[in-house]
Amino acid sequence: MDFKSYITGFVDGEGCFSVSFTKRSKLNTGIEVRPSFSVSQKKFSLDLLKKIHEYFTCGAIRYSKSDGVYKYEVRSLSDITLYIIPHFQKYPLLTAKSKDFDLFVQICQMMTANLHRNHEYLAKIIDLAYQMNCSGKRKYQRKDLLKLL
Amino acid sequence: MDFKSYITGFVDGEGCFSVSFTKRSKLNTGIEVRPSFSVSQKKFSLDLLKKIHEYFTCGAIRYSKSDGVYKYEVRSLSDITLYIIPHFQKYPLLTAKSKDFDLFVQICQMMTANLHRNHEYLAKIIDLAYQMNCSGKRKYQRKDLLKLL
Repeated sequence: MDFKSYITGFVDGEGCFSVSFTKRSKLNTGIEVRPSFSVSQKKFSLDLLKKIHEYFTCGAIRYSKSDGVYKYEVRSLSDITLYIIPHFQKYPLLTAKSKDFDLFVQICQMMTANLHRNHEYLAKIIDLAYQMNCSGKRKYQRKDLLKLL
Repeated sequence: MDFKSYITGFVDGEGCFSVSFTKRSKLNTGIEVRPSFSVSQKKFSLDLLKKIHEYFTCGAIRYSKSDGVYKYEVRSLSDITLYIIPHFQKYPLLTAKSKDFDLFVQICQMMTANLHRNHEYLAKIIDLAYQMNCSGKRKYQRKDLLKLL
């Protein structure tokens, strides 16, 4: 079996590309942008998360008490750029999640260019992020974030 | 990308191996055994289900109104034996779902040998099936089925 293709298949079902926002008065824009790639599993599939962690050589596995699941997550922008994005460019997702991934890549590229520190580009990032499906419950509505800018 | 490995990854997250039981007074045992392999997706990932259907060359895709999802499903024992089981033997599942698959294979092999028509073996099949995680809501409790035999 080709584990790289397996990972893409598994992530197409169980993975999540998301971008969340937090109010941070100390930042120039007032808003922190946090990209995240994650895969959650119950305890009996923890071994697979460990293999995925090993393969991507970045991120961490932690236990989420509220959901009762183990979550492999990569939050570092440079790790996402170096290890996560190139994998899914070489082994592309085949479900609607590929649209989330495309938006995620756009946002990460803008962040790498430090554009999220600029009000105008941050508004664009918020627009893109709120088109993604996989971000779970949003703390803020899109319009509330844009008002802050 | 190797689509065969991708499928195993995707099914490891989203697929379901299950064995359900229905009361059938016309049958010698009074109980019909129905194995099923299925993968469900929302509308925007219907294309992937079509690719999976094409790959396995059996089963069908139908819309489940109650769940609002499209389901690719193989119910024929001979199709399961010819097309589904060999795939996952060659490209093995890596999560806890592999335990469901092992039980599923045991049951399908017993059915191919027509053992499900024998009361004693059917009780064994019921035992095995009720150890599987992926069978959704059970119509009957295990003890109620065993009482029928």
